[in-house]
Amino acid sequence: MKLYNLKAAPNPRRVRIFLAEKVIAVPLVEIDLAKGENRTPEFLAKNPLGLLPVLELDDGSVITESVAICRYFEEQQPTPPLFGATLLERARIEMWNRRAELEVMLPLIDHFVHTHAFWQGRRLQSAEVGELARDTALKRMAWLDAELAAREFLAGERYSMADITLQCALLLGKNTGAPIPETLTHLSRWFAAVTARPTARA
Amino acid sequence: MKLYNLKAAPNPRRVRIFLAEKVIAVPLVEIDLAKGENRTPEFLAKNPLGLLPVLELDDGSVITESVAICRYFEEQQPTPPLFGATLLERARIEMWNRRAELEVMLPLIDHFVHTHAFWQGRRLQSAEVGELARDTALKRMAWLDAELAAREFLAGERYSMADITLQCALLLGKNTGAPIPETLTHLSRWFAAVTARPTARA
Repeated sequence: MKLYNLKAAPNPRRVRIFLAEKVIAVPLVEIDLAKGENRTPEFLAKNPLGLLPVLELDDGSVITESVAICRYFEEQQPTPPLFGATLLERARIEMWNRRAELEVMLPLIDHFVHTHAFWQGRRLQSAEVGELARDTALKRMAWLDAELAAREFLAGERYSMADITLQCALLLGKNTGAPIPETLTHLSRWFAAVTARPTARA
Repeated sequence: MKLYNLKAAPNPRRVRIFLAEKVIAVPLVEIDLAKGENRTPEFLAKNPLGLLPVLELDDGSVITESVAICRYFEEQQPTPPLFGATLLERARIEMWNRRAELEVMLPLIDHFVHTHAFWQGRRLQSAEVGELARDTALKRMAWLDAELAAREFLAGERYSMADITLQCALLLGKNTGAPIPETLTHLSRWFAAVTARPTARA
């Protein structure tokens, strides 16, 4: 088994943190985007989208998509439960994981792609679309701040996959000009707590 | 139990088709966006994002996000399995479901929002961004066409959640100026087959 990895990107980080929380060791294979290693015929045969992470099983089967990879390990090793221990808890964690991804991570990626110098000439950029995406992300952060006033973690009283997704999203925002506003004290408290976990730097 | 529904939108349709495939009856409550029924204090207490669908359980618990709702029913009634029957099948279906959503549905929604008259004055529109989103969706359709040359359904030989997501995405594209190109014969064959299922009009 191998996990094809990209050190600085939010999605491979989700899987690395998840595996660290489970104390599961999977050999990493680093892929260098600057050298185009995600565009070689060998890599595209594993994932035609050229995206990371990619999990390759010993029989050559390939699983892509961070949440699919994490859930694969959750089923094999349910403890500690990061997708929930009961039916309703699992539904809530999936709901919050999707909200963190669709409502926070995607706008922050849009903001990054549309406004950052790194993407000039690589992708179509619209400063207006980038600013709108940032505004959306900031509104969602204010919403999550209110939610986190009432509980310790995003989906309840236990750290879960939803927290992993949100912390990776907000770390991207922090590094690309869309940090958590200081006025959002509950979200800031939560972010300080989750990023202080020993697994956060996995 | 109630399912708050929006007839013409792709995400509520995913849940309705899923429930029809499972032969599970849930009372629907229609929400009228034109009347702002998704923006009332009562509705926003259920989903602060104002989005549909929303599942309300008999104890008042709320689950939003179409995939979270579907998986909740899958756990309660595993037959027929729409998220997969084995560990590897479940991983593949989740992978393909996410690819259908992130790589096809989201660009088609972007194209719709950025180019359609319905959204004029309601959302920031960039014709350039809309066209780029359409180009992305068309590239992904070509990729899926090649994938579907080798198998009957998106994630294997059995109809699954991934097919439901893709058919709802491509129906949106068909209705908003981004239909499947006729040259994509495998994808067109698949689309004709899944939309001919009795559940497609649920």
